Amino acid sequence: MIRWLGPTFVQHGFKGRDLCKANRPEIPECMGAVCAAVYLIVIIIFIPFPFYKDIVAATSGGGNRDVVLEVHHVNEGRFLHRFPHSKLASYLSAILSLQTIALLGLSDDLFDIRWRHKWWIPGLACIPILVPYLGELFDLGGLYYVYMACIAMFCPQSINMLAGINGIEVAQSIVIALLLVFNDCLYLFTPYPHPATDSHLFSLYLLLPWLGVSFALLCHNWFPARVFVGDTYCYFSGMVFAVVGLLGHFSKTLGLLLVPQLFNFLYSAPQVFGVVPCPRHRLPKLNARTGLLEPSVTPWDPDNGVQPRPWVAPILLLLARFRLLQVTLDKRGRFLETSNFTLLNLWLVIRGPLREDRLAAEVTALQFAVGALGLFARHRLALLVFKEDNLGMTLG
Amino acid sequence: MIRWLGPTFVQHGFKGRDLCKANRPEIPECMGAVCAAVYLIVIIIFIPFPFYKDIVAATSGGGNRDVVLEVHHVNEGRFLHRFPHSKLASYLSAILSLQTIALLGLSDDLFDIRWRHKWWIPGLACIPILVPYLGELFDLGGLYYVYMACIAMFCPQSINMLAGINGIEVAQSIVIALLLVFNDCLYLFTPYPHPATDSHLFSLYLLLPWLGVSFALLCHNWFPARVFVGDTYCYFSGMVFAVVGLLGHFSKTLGLLLVPQLFNFLYSAPQVFGVVPCPRHRLPKLNARTGLLEPSVTPWDPDNGVQPRPWVAPILLLLARFRLLQVTLDKRGRFLETSNFTLLNLWLVIRGPLREDRLAAEVTALQFAVGALGLFARHRLALLVFKEDNLGMTLG
Repeated sequence: MIRWLGPTFVQHGFKGRDLCKANRPEIPECMGAVCAAVYLIVIIIFIPFPFYKDIVAATSGGGNRDVVLEVHHVNEGRFLHRFPHSKLASYLSAILSLQTIALLGLSDDLFDIRWRHKWWIPGLACIPILVPYLGELFDLGGLYYVYMACIAMFCPQSINMLAGINGIEVAQSIVIALLLVFNDCLYLFTPYPHPATDSHLFSLYLLLPWLGVSFALLCHNWFPARVFVGDTYCYFSGMVFAVVGLLGHFSKTLGLLLVPQLFNFLYSAPQVFGVVPCPRHRLPKLNARTGLLEPSVTPWDPDNGVQPRPWVAPILLLLARFRLLQVTLDKRGRFLETSNFTLLNLWLVIRGPLREDRLAAEVTALQFAVGALGLFARHRLALLVFKEDNLGMTLG
Repeated sequence: MIRWLGPTFVQHGFKGRDLCKANRPEIPECMGAVCAAVYLIVIIIFIPFPFYKDIVAATSGGGNRDVVLEVHHVNEGRFLHRFPHSKLASYLSAILSLQTIALLGLSDDLFDIRWRHKWWIPGLACIPILVPYLGELFDLGGLYYVYMACIAMFCPQSINMLAGINGIEVAQSIVIALLLVFNDCLYLFTPYPHPATDSHLFSLYLLLPWLGVSFALLCHNWFPARVFVGDTYCYFSGMVFAVVGLLGHFSKTLGLLLVPQLFNFLYSAPQVFGVVPCPRHRLPKLNARTGLLEPSVTPWDPDNGVQPRPWVAPILLLLARFRLLQVTLDKRGRFLETSNFTLLNLWLVIRGPLREDRLAAEVTALQFAVGALGLFARHRLALLVFKEDNLGMTLG
């Protein structure tokens, strides 16, 4: 469908120029919307399958011995059984949140919503997943509720911030999804039923189709990209992880896999909060002569007195000393340029100029390494230190 | 927001020409998407409110005497109560269906999906509302399931077919919603609790906000229209009624209110199924000299042998005899023109040329009259004939 809908998207104005190529080709934008649509159809049609056992129990009455049947005769003259409506409600609220972020992401791609309004997009989309928990608000505690809201708002935004070069949005999502799937499998293939099996099964239901559509998109979005993914993809992908982490009750594990995103977010803070000026695009800059990407820079204007504030300047110089920032000073020690505060630019500052696909591959590898290390620490080291690890039971 | 977003919509290509005006002004299109978005936000935020009683019961444990508390101590060490998760699941699946049709309607407005593909839009959108019922499939019977699917597919499509002049889409929706609200109130204001009270309360939750956004849209869409509603509005509106009718278990009553739509659908059949040629637009035609609307026509081409099939011609002549069709013959009795098969054109054939707002008002009045008569028949006459009327208990 990506290949098939590409020309249609271009025709209706969904197109963008690839700024990291010498000839700046115009290619279809917002192809993540196609992925989101296919994904939503798949998981909506999938709704009855996790409940198959319960449906059979309700109708045949005894085909499955392991399902407890409690048949009540109700006023209306219909037979009801103990159908897991709470599981169904979670599943539905998850789909609802995902669909909301698809709608909002689409409207962002359509109308180019301003940066300060964009912050509200994941906030709105996480309402469906959080609101049904209001019933348990007093059980959970207000703080935990705020924590859940932060997770749901951080994930989509952070994926959307680590973007700008071909394939990086999809590749990072695939790495995170694969590590989450691996983590789920640890709980499923234990010799005996684990109390968290159900929630990890739920997580697999949502992650596997997302991996499917993401791989399809990566084929077309990897360097040299033939389509762009659009904000829809980034928001949606982040929301898939948030939904899975919240409903699967493993948001801390999810946090370990999002360390590069968290770092990117914190590193971006100076520009996001206006301590350092923030241009419209911060993606790395192509050096047309070498064909390699170099860190993009924000210019300062010393002649017109545009300089970092007194308390900011020494910090910038300190970062430059540790090669965490590229700073260009003039002869009088005034700031001429500083590289933009994104992980991609930082990687180029550290590693030197790289080709676009090389940069994407290295950052993806970094994502994998950090995530795998995080999972290892979670499952092995936590066992030694805290003795409260879930996997401990099987390893014990 | 309609007034505020109008220029933005035009700027991003959501605009259309009003073919029923002499100067064919260009105005914002697809404003129903704004209504749908506001409506969705409202009902998503409203999710916890219908469950307030249950939430209080779960947390304070006894504030409400009428809520049965069954506290089980479960393995995980958490206290659970009998939260009505099945009601929550219905509510969530309703919102999910509505959001799906908003997404699909939007993509229709964006990409101008072909007529034969459009038929699938309500079909896809009704999956979320029908799929959770699979659990009760054997209780309900396959035929009832098909019946529900037909309702869910017919409502959105039929509202979308009775369209084409300023205000008619919104006005018919408002009339239907008002009559449904009236019908709900009959069940709510009974002296003692009625078994169907809950489902009619649920129906009010969904209908009242829809009335709100529809009235706002009508202000801008009534003759002379300053905005168009787009397919999104029609599909969405139909889906609101379908959802309410299905989950409230009063789909037969809903059918009584949709008689004009059903008639329009059946009357359109010859053109939809290709017995008579179907042009792209079938809306009434403006006579620029008089400023009145006249029936639009489909031309036949007798010189090139384009004539109705032998078995069709006498039916067309018979319809013309009863003033249910406008037919123009040449001197040799060959067909030159027939009016298009829509309720709006038929009304103009019967009543003669009308001004656009007059036509919209009259068809809306017809909708109200037919619906009110239907409700009257449902509640009063059914009482006399079948003695199985719900209201019967209070009228008894």
